[in-house]
Amino acid sequence: MQYAAPISRLIDELNKLPGIGPKTAQRLAYHLVKASLEDVQALANALAEVKSRIGYCSVCGNLTDVNPCFICSSGSRDRTILCVVEQPKDVVAMERSGEFRGLYHVLHGVISPANGVGPDDLRIKPLLGRVSEDGVREVILALNPNVEGEATSLYVAELLRSSGVRVTRIAYGIPAGGDLEYADDVTLSRALEGRREM
Amino acid sequence: MQYAAPISRLIDELNKLPGIGPKTAQRLAYHLVKASLEDVQALANALAEVKSRIGYCSVCGNLTDVNPCFICSSGSRDRTILCVVEQPKDVVAMERSGEFRGLYHVLHGVISPANGVGPDDLRIKPLLGRVSEDGVREVILALNPNVEGEATSLYVAELLRSSGVRVTRIAYGIPAGGDLEYADDVTLSRALEGRREM
Repeated sequence: MQYAAPISRLIDELNKLPGIGPKTAQRLAYHLVKASLEDVQALANALAEVKSRIGYCSVCGNLTDVNPCFICSSGSRDRTILCVVEQPKDVVAMERSGEFRGLYHVLHGVISPANGVGPDDLRIKPLLGRVSEDGVREVILALNPNVEGEATSLYVAELLRSSGVRVTRIAYGIPAGGDLEYADDVTLSRALEGRREM
Repeated sequence: MQYAAPISRLIDELNKLPGIGPKTAQRLAYHLVKASLEDVQALANALAEVKSRIGYCSVCGNLTDVNPCFICSSGSRDRTILCVVEQPKDVVAMERSGEFRGLYHVLHGVISPANGVGPDDLRIKPLLGRVSEDGVREVILALNPNVEGEATSLYVAELLRSSGVRVTRIAYGIPAGGDLEYADDVTLSRALEGRREM
């Protein structure tokens, strides 16, 4: 026994978090022991609150404490454009860019037979429903550019074909500030493929 | 506003922890939103418990949920040897090695004029008290081998000189599995200095 039991328990709980190994868990636990009671209570309360108050938006599937979420219920968004993303955190990334003024649709994953995830496990049916009912003009697919993301994009695009809605996907290419020399082959060939007139 | 308020609050609280930047805080928060209610409650409870039940041992200064701590109250430790360390986590490191069977004394820092830490801010007086009253034969100084740790070691050794107790410090040298080629000059010169007959 190297630790007092409550410290050992806290280290165990912190160690369960993704990317937090035993060393980091120990460092955090010792920090929290020394931290003010207010700070630790604030963290404990934030944990309790996130579980009691956060759920999924019934419209877009984003994480929210009100339903529909603040984006879906906003009066200043373009309701004719839907951006389809894999995860709620992708909504945050898109919002951070400040470019997109439409609404979102979160699939909560991608089709992945290896992980036992089929189309019915994703929020694809609600997407079709929104497109057919809500006067949507364009669906932008913003899934991650890997095998599963692209397979899912193709699958969703195919399903939407009959609805007459415009289906696009975000551009793949060299990232801003990137360097051709260090770009991998796939990225380079996609950047070439996606070249535009100047 | 990119996040629902409770998520934003949790990210802020996690972001206050040492070594947890905004990206990691976001990743952890999203993990916790998806985690089971039991897991999140277990973490929140461990946080509350560590603040309500953990304090300092009145004898050695280690973190503990009982007073005196389980090491100070153990019947199987050699009570004539004290190992002086900077922080409670150093006790854990020493215990992990399994080599030391004496008792500890945690100074809670080192003398550091630059940070406004003087001898009176450390648990040096209680150390002198323990040495004069408790039949201690040897004090092993196990402070970190840097300028402040060594200055503190010299200071404490000087204070203990008159008590007639044996004062030693742990060896500095090449770490086990270390490589001479990559050892810095100070470590190498200390390893030479501390050479022993074979």
